[in-house]
Parts: sequence; C-alpha cells; structure tokens
Amino acid sequence: MTDAMRRELDFLLFDWLKVDELADSEAFSGQDRDDWSAFLDLSQAISANEFLPCYKATDRDEPLLENGTVRVQEDLRKALAVYLEAGLHLASVDVDAGGMGLPLSVSTAAMSGLMAANVAGSAFIMLSAANARVILDFGTPGQIAAFARPQLEGRALGTMCLSEPDVGSSLGDVTTRAVPEGKDELGHRYRISGRKMWISAGDHDVTENIVHLVLGKAVQPGGGTRPGPKGTSLFIVPKLLPGAPAARNDISVAGLNHKMGYRGTPNCLLNFGDGDGAIGWRVGNEGDGLRIMFQMMNEARINVGLSGAAMAHRGWELSRQYAAERIQGRPVHDKQRETPVAILRHPDVRRMLLQQKAIAEGALALCLRSALLCDRIRTREERADTALLDLLTPVVKSWPSEQGLVSLHQAIQIHGGYGYTRDFDVEQLYRDSRLNPIHEGTTGIQAIDLVGRKILGDDGKAMFAFLETVRQTARAASAFPDEADTLREHCALFETLVGEMLSYANPSETLANATAFLDGFGHFVVAWLWLDMAAAAGQGANPQIAEEKRWACRYFYGAEVPKIAGMLAPLRHDRTLTRDVPDHIFG
Amino acid sequence: MTDAMRRELDFLLFDWLKVDELADSEAFSGQDRDDWSAFLDLSQAISANEFLPCYKATDRDEPLLENGTVRVQEDLRKALAVYLEAGLHLASVDVDAGGMGLPLSVSTAAMSGLMAANVAGSAFIMLSAANARVILDFGTPGQIAAFARPQLEGRALGTMCLSEPDVGSSLGDVTTRAVPEGKDELGHRYRISGRKMWISAGDHDVTENIVHLVLGKAVQPGGGTRPGPKGTSLFIVPKLLPGAPAARNDISVAGLNHKMGYRGTPNCLLNFGDGDGAIGWRVGNEGDGLRIMFQMMNEARINVGLSGAAMAHRGWELSRQYAAERIQGRPVHDKQRETPVAILRHPDVRRMLLQQKAIAEGALALCLRSALLCDRIRTREERADTALLDLLTPVVKSWPSEQGLVSLHQAIQIHGGYGYTRDFDVEQLYRDSRLNPIHEGTTGIQAIDLVGRKILGDDGKAMFAFLETVRQTARAASAFPDEADTLREHCALFETLVGEMLSYANPSETLANATAFLDGFGHFVVAWLWLDMAAAAGQGANPQIAEEKRWACRYFYGAEVPKIAGMLAPLRHDRTLTRDVPDHIFG
Repeated sequence: MTDAMRRELDFLLFDWLKVDELADSEAFSGQDRDDWSAFLDLSQAISANEFLPCYKATDRDEPLLENGTVRVQEDLRKALAVYLEAGLHLASVDVDAGGMGLPLSVSTAAMSGLMAANVAGSAFIMLSAANARVILDFGTPGQIAAFARPQLEGRALGTMCLSEPDVGSSLGDVTTRAVPEGKDELGHRYRISGRKMWISAGDHDVTENIVHLVLGKAVQPGGGTRPGPKGTSLFIVPKLLPGAPAARNDISVAGLNHKMGYRGTPNCLLNFGDGDGAIGWRVGNEGDGLRIMFQMMNEARINVGLSGAAMAHRGWELSRQYAAERIQGRPVHDKQRETPVAILRHPDVRRMLLQQKAIAEGALALCLRSALLCDRIRTREERADTALLDLLTPVVKSWPSEQGLVSLHQAIQIHGGYGYTRDFDVEQLYRDSRLNPIHEGTTGIQAIDLVGRKILGDDGKAMFAFLETVRQTARAASAFPDEADTLREHCALFETLVGEMLSYANPSETLANATAFLDGFGHFVVAWLWLDMAAAAGQGANPQIAEEKRWACRYFYGAEVPKIAGMLAPLRHDRTLTRDVPDHIFG
Repeated sequence: MTDAMRRELDFLLFDWLKVDELADSEAFSGQDRDDWSAFLDLSQAISANEFLPCYKATDRDEPLLENGTVRVQEDLRKALAVYLEAGLHLASVDVDAGGMGLPLSVSTAAMSGLMAANVAGSAFIMLSAANARVILDFGTPGQIAAFARPQLEGRALGTMCLSEPDVGSSLGDVTTRAVPEGKDELGHRYRISGRKMWISAGDHDVTENIVHLVLGKAVQPGGGTRPGPKGTSLFIVPKLLPGAPAARNDISVAGLNHKMGYRGTPNCLLNFGDGDGAIGWRVGNEGDGLRIMFQMMNEARINVGLSGAAMAHRGWELSRQYAAERIQGRPVHDKQRETPVAILRHPDVRRMLLQQKAIAEGALALCLRSALLCDRIRTREERADTALLDLLTPVVKSWPSEQGLVSLHQAIQIHGGYGYTRDFDVEQLYRDSRLNPIHEGTTGIQAIDLVGRKILGDDGKAMFAFLETVRQTARAASAFPDEADTLREHCALFETLVGEMLSYANPSETLANATAFLDGFGHFVVAWLWLDMAAAAGQGANPQIAEEKRWACRYFYGAEVPKIAGMLAPLRHDRTLTRDVPDHIFG
C-alpha cells in the first residue's frame, strides 16, 4: 500500500462511507478510528516493506515441486511469516475466537493494500481467512480447536478444494468420494478419494500444516452417491493428521499449473487418497456442502473483485507517475513547440489516465461499499442490506475484474513499449489481473447468478429497491444536476428493462444474454457510486479530493455512462440469437 | 495456416473480393488463380509443418545474447531457413527484381497464415520484405545489388531502426547523428552514431548479414543537425560491410528487451558507432528520412493489423474446438438435464464464439480489402483508391489490434482456468497480441493520424467519398434490409459528426478525442464489411458459408453496432474535458 492508496482508502472509509459511525454499535464497541488507523498503518508498512519488494521475484521464480513438496519463492515465504506473526490475518475474526473483530470495511481496505503490492502473496492469506471462518461458523468445537485454531495462530494455512479436472463451474458434478468411517472426537470421519484441480496454495512450505476444505460426495449405503448440488458435502482434510507425531495424510501433489500470471501462488492438482484414502471430517450436514461452500465462495468472490480494484489502483499510480516523468512529443494543440513535453500534457494520455482513475477508484469504492454492507448487516441485520449485498456480489466480483483489465490495458499504452517489458510492473499487473474474470466463477457465471438468482428468482424486488436507493443518491446530489438527471434516466431504463425481463414467458432467453446485462448494470452501479462519492467529497473538508472526484465523475458520465445503452442492446433487440444460431455455424 | 483458415481466406479472396479479376490486368498478366492457390498451398504447408510446431518453444526459450550475438530458438531458425529457401518472401516482390510479383492480396493472405502459426517468426520476414522494398524503391543500383539483393536471395534479413530510448512516437526528435564522408560506389557515405531501441530482429543467427535501415540526422557543415521530421534522413547500415572478407560494422547489441509475449523475436537495443562510427549509406535525399520510412511504416502497420486478425482467427478456431469437446454443466434452458453437455451448448459460450468469429473474420476482411486496394492502385491507379487506403490504414492497424485482444479475452474465458495456463495456446496468443496496440504507432497515434491527417487535413473529402461507398453497399444488400437501414443510419451519423468536426474553430478539441472517433469509426468500417461479406456470401455457391456469414453479420449488427454511439460520446458531449482537467488531478 502506497501513501497515495492510503489517502484514497482513508477518503473512502472515513469521508465517504463514514465508517466511524460503526464505533457506536455494539458489534464494534470499544474500537475507534484510532485503532483502525493504527491497523491500517501496520498493514501499509508490511505491504510496502515485505510484499512489494518481492513482487517481481515471485513472478520470475515460480513455485517448484520438489520431492512431492512445493517450495515458494523465499522472500514471499518470509513476507507471509511476518504477516502471520503480526497477526494481521486476524483482523476480521471475532474477538471471541481470538481475532481483532475489526469491521470488514477496514480489514478489506487493508487487504486491498496487500493485493496491490503482491496479489500472489495475498491469495495465501485470503483463502485461509475464509477457510477458518467456515470452520468457526459450521465446525464442531473439536474441529475448531484442531483446524481453525492453528490457522488463527498462524501455524497453518487453509485452502478451498472445489474444482476437478473435468468439473469447473458445475460443482454439483464433483466425483470426489467420501466413504463414512463412523464418528470420532473430530466428528463424522470419512476416507476421501478424488482429484482436485486449480487448488491455490494447495501445497507450500510457508506453514507446516495445510487445512483443505474439500467438496465431495458422501458414499451412501448402496455404494452410490447422490446427484447434483444437494449430493455434496464438505470435508476438512488436513495435510498433517492431528496427533503427535503428526502423520502425513494421503494427499499428493500431482502437478503444478503454470500460469500466465499470479505465479507466486502455487496452483496445484491434488490427489486425495491415491493410497489408503485420505482421512477427513465432515463440516456441517450431509448434502450441505455446496451451500456452506458458498459462504466461503462469496467471500472469495468479493476478494477477487477487490484484487482487481487494487491492481487497477497500482496501475493508475504507476501510469500517472510515468506520464509526469516521461518527456516526449508535443501536444496536438501546440505542435510547433520547440522542446518536447511530459506525456501527461497529451490529451489522449490524460483521457487514459482519467479512465484508469475512474475505474480504479470506482472499483475500490464498490468493494468497500459492499464490505460496509456486511458490517451493517452485523450491526443491525436489515433485510434490505442483505438483499442489496446479494444483488451486488456478482458485480463486485466481475466489474473490477473486467474493467481492471481495461484500465491496465491503458496503463501499458501509457508506458508504450516499456509497458510491454518485464522491467515494468504494469506488465505483470496485467498478467496477474487476467485471472480475475476466471477464478471463483467466471464473468459468465456471475451474470447468470445476477440475472437468474438475484433478479428473476427474486421477482426483481431487490433490484427495484436498489433503484430507489440510486434515486435517493440522485436527489441528494444537488451540486451535480446533469449527472443526477443522467442517473435518473438510467434508473428508468433499468426499471423498464427489468420489467420486460420479468414479463417474458421464457426466462432462458434473458439468461442467454445475462452477460450483456451484467456489463451494463456494472457500469450503472459504478455511475451511482461516482455521483455519491463526488457529492460526498464536495461536502468534505479536502478541496483537492473534492476536485479530483468531480473530474473523475465528469469523465465517467461523459465517456463511460454513454456506453451502457449499447452494452444492453442484446437484451432488447435480438434476444434469441444464441438460441437460434445452429451448432454447425461453429464448425 | 489451418484448413479452416485456408477456407476462410479462399472465401475472402475469391468469392468476396474476386481477386481473380486481377489476372486480367497487365500488372499480373500471366498469373491465374491456380498459381495463387499453389502459392497458398506451399505457404500453408510451411506454416503448419515448420512454424506452428515451435510456437510454444519460441516463447519458452527466449533469444539469448551470447558473446555479443543473439541466438534464436533453434527450431524457429530452421523454420525461417525453410521459408527463405522456398522463396516465399519473394511473393509480392516485382518480377523485374527477381520476385514472384503476386498480388498483395494473395501474399497478405499467405502472411496471415504464417502469423497465425507463429507471429514471432513472421516478424523476421515481414520486416525484411518491407526493408528490401524501400531499397528497391529508393536505392541506387549499387545499393540494390549490395543490400536488397541479399535479402531477396534469403542470405540477409532487414530491420527498421527508428525509435531511440527517449524517442518513441516523436521520430522528428531522433538524435542519431550521421557525419558525411563523401561518396563511393554505394552512394553518399556517413559515419553513424546513436542508440536505437525496440529493434525487432536487430541481431540473430538466422542469416549471416543483417541490413539495418536507420533513421538519423545528417550533420551539417557547422556541426549541428536540422530539427524536426524534415531534418531526418535514412541510412543503410549493414551488420557486415561489403567486401571480402566481410568486416563487422561498428554495431553492438547493448541489450535485449524481455517482453510479455512475442518472445521468439529478439528485440534489441543497438548501439551504432560506439567505436569509430558505423559506416552507412544514405537512401534517398537528405531530409527525406521520415517520408521514405513511412512507406515501410505503412506496410508494417498493415501487417500489425494483419497479425492481430490472424491471431484472433487462431483463437477462434481453438475456442470452437474446445467448446465442442469440453463437457460441462447444463444449459440455462435445460437445467434439469441428467448429463452435462458440451459447453458449446451454453448460450453465453455461443455469444463469445460469435463475437470471436465476427472479430476474427471481420478483421481479416479489413486487412485483405486494404491489400486489394493496393493491388487496384497498381493496376489502375485511381485517386479514390489511394484516398480510401490512406483513410483506412489507421483502422487496419488498430481495429484488429484492439479487437483481436477482445476476442482472445473471450478465447481464454471459454477455456476457463485452462486458458490461463501456458499449456494452452490461447494464453500465448493473448500475450503475443498485446504488443499490437503498441508497435508501429500506438492506437492513440493511429487516431491522431486518422482524425488529423486523413480527415481534418483533407477537409473530409476521402471520408465523405467513403460514406458514399458504404451507402452503395447498403443499397446492394437487398437481402439484408434491416442491417442496410442500420448502416445507412450510421452513415448519416458519421456525416453529421464529421461535418461538426470540420466546423469547429479549434481542431485540437477534436484531436483530443481522436481515439473515441477511431473506436467508433473502426466498428462502423467493419459493420460495412460484414454486410458486404454477408451479401456476397448469400449470392455465392457455398450455402454453409452463406449461413455462417449471415449469423455472424446478425451478431455484429445486434451486439457490436449498438456500441458505436456510446464510443463516440466524448466527441459530442464533453469535448473539452482533457483540456479543462487541471494537471494536479493527476497527483
């Protein structure tokens, strides 16, 4: 986390979202802004001093599989040790469970700084935090002591093992089998066998033990398993089994995936139970696997979006610095000038910088606004907040992922040929970010979630409530009458469109164009946030920030909002295209 | 070049563009379609057998700088030797000069197949062909014999040395100096000193000699050089000097750039004249350097676009194959189905495939249509063709470059996590393609060329003539009345917009938004081509191709054309944004 990013996070948290007000609630009683700032200071220092310096090295020196064990780049291993030693991973863990119990908005802000510095490093932490939370929420006291506690104490890290070589997005089809072996002090015990693909931090030498949460199917008395999502259960399968001396469980690393980016995080193909079967214990009830996993998945999805936002922000910082320092050419309005100027003076470079700023800060705002919703749900438990969070989650996952790449595309353009070389960080940020539209559910999967589950499955209720919230923002933004009008026009557009979508007899026609909806809706959501931010900054104490937000908002309404109608076109004018087109067109 | 790509190229050349008709012209007399097909057959075989098999290896085993010389990946070196031995690089060289004298449309089609197979390999050939053509066109007989002839005979390859570490897009500012040393049998001789950056194939072990074309400034009697573009001259500076035994010229490889992709092509920082000065001979007149170089640059720009189109096409082929084979999930309209289906059945995957097809084939059509314009200029020399080619060149460079990346983004999405790994070619195609919006003039530079030179500098004449051509296409496409109407509406939109642009007192306000214009105009140009292709295919003999083109055209008009208005918004609603925004907004 740089000072520039910290300044932005402070604005978002304290001036815009007014996170201070959480201190008045019982959930966060005894905490105040000073505590949170101290936590952010420590996070910032560790990101900057431990994780950023090895950003390039973690890419260059990929994890190695040696004698069945994965070795992580040395500096990254040390950085993770410092992070765990400092207990930063305990930020949002309940105080009762030994954590700091900070608001998620604050811990999310800190995490974004780590992601901006070294996203591959952040993945270890992020997954483990989500894993421990699942065990804390659904595990037995024995499971919590044996498998959550070591993660909280920084002695183990956790993973999520969902996909299989032939099963990516359709998790109801997993074939990993769990044969029941009765019950012991750690709960219902099983022998697990199966192959799990794409397991981030699936093996490493950062901590001695690794706690895998494995999605599988419990074998029924007849020897079969139940089909579909409701046939899935979740199992804790540790690398080292409890007991002294700790014995190795039957888990082997069958291979490492070699990726375009995100290279510092080992991505493993894990074989469970190649020998006698790996030993695991069920968390929660049989058949609840996917349901429980979705808690972890939703947290992971928000974190994917957050990493997209964080990397976009780092790209924007690097670009504006480069544009101010790089001297070349004369601007189009002053071609006869004798000496060349900083490329910041070129209108096209300014346009790209404004786009980067609007995307990076808009995406960060989206993530932190959602984190605050989680905090609000905790402090006052209003149905409307939960519904809004559910509605926004696919946008939080996908908009920063897709638009973060757009902004990093511009970061490379601003750097010219240099931006295409591995000497400059924007090159790696672009490759690292390319994972985001894929993992934890592709953009297409998010779109189906948004349109199918969150809109059609809800009769549009959360959506219409959200449009009312947006209209309130427009009403309150009296200093921005043009933008407020535009936002209101788009509320009407979405109201009409969603009304149409609900009226169609065949919902699959709408689902077929779900990605077009997600694209347009994402831009609309961020337009709402930009107006809200600009209005808040205008009433805030910092005139420089107020001016910055006003210009970025003007850019967003001038150049991005006009794209929305075009994005939505497939939902209105040729809805049956993908159904009508015959297979043989695809050769 | 795959069979699928060959089928597409055959359609474009013979069914759509009716290249056969060129055989009736004097310039190509004695040639016919059989000759061209035989040439395409040979190109296809060499691309498939020599270049495609080492696609991954050229990426993995980057060129090495050893003892001052660059070593290229071994299989690529052999593939290039086969290509040169077969004389394929002579395709579009005049018969008088020892070439095959084929139409550029045919040789361009063949080059696209090579680029699809191994773009890093194609770069060696492409640059050398352009280099030799400059020497043939502007060199003295002695220069042609000494420096073009060895390239034609496959004993040398050529480069273009324009950029310097501090000079990328502003070539009038180059600082490479050339001190005159009188005249010898090779022309005006100079001692050259300077540093040249981003030199593709700047050194290698493919051929013994390398012919550099170096942009520099002739030192004047007073010891100074002339400022700006008109102070530039062009020099031939060979790696080995003529004479036996050949002596090494004073050129050293100061370093290699390590790139995101395109890794098989060594990209060098070359120092000229670190010792006594490198020896070079001027081509053309003093002061004409940049003007001459622009012939080479225009050819290179079209080839950059072509490579974007070619890689997009390969990505589309790989995606549709993967989508047909990969079994996963149930389509949104049949969720209760027992067994999973090929992902080709998912509407969102079909949408992405249609987008890939529309971009890849649209981009190829754009490049070949432009190549045919070059052929027509040769056979009948009409001013209108030249003006249209000038107008389209920035689009040919930039649309396949930018949209090719969009289509390869979708190729990775279709492959899911696998697409992000280096085991699958789409990962490398994406990295390789990322260079295209940068080299030979960034997208922003193309936009300024389009709006400044080709539209405002021409009082819109070529543009208005082009709109008339588009209207003719709409009139002729009677089988597609809706698309024709939409195209006509967009003609009116561009007519109004360009009229506005010409009326503004301050052209820099328009230039400031040139990239927005290029984005929208590029989509419009390809919409025109799609309607023209679909109409031609509908009247052709192949019903399968007619159906394919009809569906892709329907996709383009349903999902892409509606984006145009949004792309153009900055030109109409907030034209002064980048001028008004103060510097301190950028921190």
